[in-house]
Amino acid sequence: MIRDAQAQSSSLTQIPTAVIYCEGNFAKIDGKTANGLVRHSEAYKIISVIDSAHGGENSGQVLDDVINNVPILKDLDASVAHATAKPDTFIYGMAPSTGRLSLADRGVVLDAIGRGMNIVSGLHEYLSDDPEIAQAASDRQVTIRDIRKPKASKDMRLFDGSVADVHALRIAVLGTDCAIGKRTTATVLARALNAKGIKTVLVGTGQTGLMQGAKYGVAMDAVPPQFCCGELEGAIVAASEAEQPDVILIEGQGALSHPAFCTSAFILRGSQPDAVILQHAPKRAHRCDFPNMPMPTPVSEIALIEAFADTKVIGVTLNHEGMSDAEVTNAISVQTDKLDLPVTDALSRPAAHLLAMVAAAYPGLQQGTPKVAV
Amino acid sequence: MIRDAQAQSSSLTQIPTAVIYCEGNFAKIDGKTANGLVRHSEAYKIISVIDSAHGGENSGQVLDDVINNVPILKDLDASVAHATAKPDTFIYGMAPSTGRLSLADRGVVLDAIGRGMNIVSGLHEYLSDDPEIAQAASDRQVTIRDIRKPKASKDMRLFDGSVADVHALRIAVLGTDCAIGKRTTATVLARALNAKGIKTVLVGTGQTGLMQGAKYGVAMDAVPPQFCCGELEGAIVAASEAEQPDVILIEGQGALSHPAFCTSAFILRGSQPDAVILQHAPKRAHRCDFPNMPMPTPVSEIALIEAFADTKVIGVTLNHEGMSDAEVTNAISVQTDKLDLPVTDALSRPAAHLLAMVAAAYPGLQQGTPKVAV
Repeated sequence: MIRDAQAQSSSLTQIPTAVIYCEGNFAKIDGKTANGLVRHSEAYKIISVIDSAHGGENSGQVLDDVINNVPILKDLDASVAHATAKPDTFIYGMAPSTGRLSLADRGVVLDAIGRGMNIVSGLHEYLSDDPEIAQAASDRQVTIRDIRKPKASKDMRLFDGSVADVHALRIAVLGTDCAIGKRTTATVLARALNAKGIKTVLVGTGQTGLMQGAKYGVAMDAVPPQFCCGELEGAIVAASEAEQPDVILIEGQGALSHPAFCTSAFILRGSQPDAVILQHAPKRAHRCDFPNMPMPTPVSEIALIEAFADTKVIGVTLNHEGMSDAEVTNAISVQTDKLDLPVTDALSRPAAHLLAMVAAAYPGLQQGTPKVAV
Repeated sequence: MIRDAQAQSSSLTQIPTAVIYCEGNFAKIDGKTANGLVRHSEAYKIISVIDSAHGGENSGQVLDDVINNVPILKDLDASVAHATAKPDTFIYGMAPSTGRLSLADRGVVLDAIGRGMNIVSGLHEYLSDDPEIAQAASDRQVTIRDIRKPKASKDMRLFDGSVADVHALRIAVLGTDCAIGKRTTATVLARALNAKGIKTVLVGTGQTGLMQGAKYGVAMDAVPPQFCCGELEGAIVAASEAEQPDVILIEGQGALSHPAFCTSAFILRGSQPDAVILQHAPKRAHRCDFPNMPMPTPVSEIALIEAFADTKVIGVTLNHEGMSDAEVTNAISVQTDKLDLPVTDALSRPAAHLLAMVAAAYPGLQQGTPKVAV
């Protein structure tokens, strides 16, 4: 099956083309930005992925076993040669937990600038603040977009409680770990709800979602904690006022139980969601990037979420990494019984199952009374 | 009783002198930076406070009904005229929730620069990034210290779990609200423990604590969430390695239950405290800066803290704002019964009561086996 990764995009001339640099990391956890953009991108038309570990392969095949129209080339040279016209944009598509640029990567970024490509980056180390890179970009008259660079603190918004007055049903997609599929599940759910005529807006909270073109959102991991809740509330209120959606989905970050990354605490406080969907990876033994930390269970995470915030977990979605299809079926069955909640997998199971999870908790949703919960 | 606010400082020539600008806010919540510095300052010798609302009064008298040697003058002119030598430093001593500089205040800051005073600020709006102020400081050859300006992200530290190996007993002082006395209680407790020969280090987490001269710490409210736990862990590990203390106290920020400011979530995760002391203000009806949000109770906050983290609340300390001494006595009695925990007031009750709270939970502390809890 050939899936057109740009099904949502308009004509080719309207959005910039891009290559995604993901050396050594495509389809891996630190390549999650690239992975996400290959699956779904509204802001850029993805031409190819750069990763010498998979040169010559198809990105959809490597990622999801489904061929798409985005090849993987071994380096920037090959990537530019492959494109019909010079790509507009070079996206630094890796999300290392350090948030920093390696020496080798620096060379590739400068090469892209030299070729006249605009740069997009999600690193904490702002390329626009790097003297050498900024100068090169200025000389070559290309732009640098640092997704994680927050606006000036003096322009940031404080929380004021207005999120409680937003009419839309608010569902936060949280997870038991980082890089576990929260954003992917939220994106699939948003698409499915909209296809059903239930107007849904996904509010992005991370650099990847914003790079993908989420219209509303804020890269929370770069906002000073004092303003985290306020900025998220602002994005939700803006989405509510502009779109009047039936549903607002909010992308989680990290995990509430995570020893190091609990931005989900701010997401719960800032979005005051009516409900939560929890993403879990049954085969993941330890936390991503922390080999000494065991994973929590869905049971403990649900208890923590419901103790921390006035909300309800309405279902669990699985990341099937390391699992056969039979194992996925089994996990769904076992977890459904154990948790007495709907359980599915946004990527390997029909979207209808994901919709059913929401409908089970909010039967009035299609009929226009979204907040009447079961 | 005259209390020497500089009891800890060494000779007059060793630390810079400072005036604290706190116009309209001294002894109020937004003046908490000034309030804290007047009570305790290791890094600066405080000469006077500037606040026309209390011009001519004594700062200790206004704050705690105890005369000290820090007068309040009505403006910068009067403050400079009063000092025996030109003060070295102008400290912008207000902490408005907006984190921003008003037009009037800007004028005063420029005036201080013009007089050759170094500037210290805890605002989110970095004075060193303000073109006019930065230029003026540069021309006049004075320095600007923005306490809240974090180091570059590329120099920040990620959490790695090493905090769990720190030997010292770790106690976090959390609260039911912002600006409720967490830092003050922690400072009093640190002083009392050290006086008893129990070596204690206070790790600051806010701009005020750092301004007061806390040797270890980080202004967490300005650190990107991705690095919050790591930076705090780093400060704790540094304190542990350099000082080998028996006890490390960690200053809380906001409140875990706060709808807008739950940096305490990161503090719990990053410090993994053995115990928590909870600061509460019985007479506070609604949250500071949020007139529509009722205060939580100690009962609910304790439950939340113990659900969120693997720790134990060992006592409650009261902020006596709005209370007579008899009411304080009554509140201590009522809360002790209700919570079955030690309760005291760090400012109005003897430090021995605070020490007893810690000794009750850790009787081995004086004998060198701090972590054996009751």
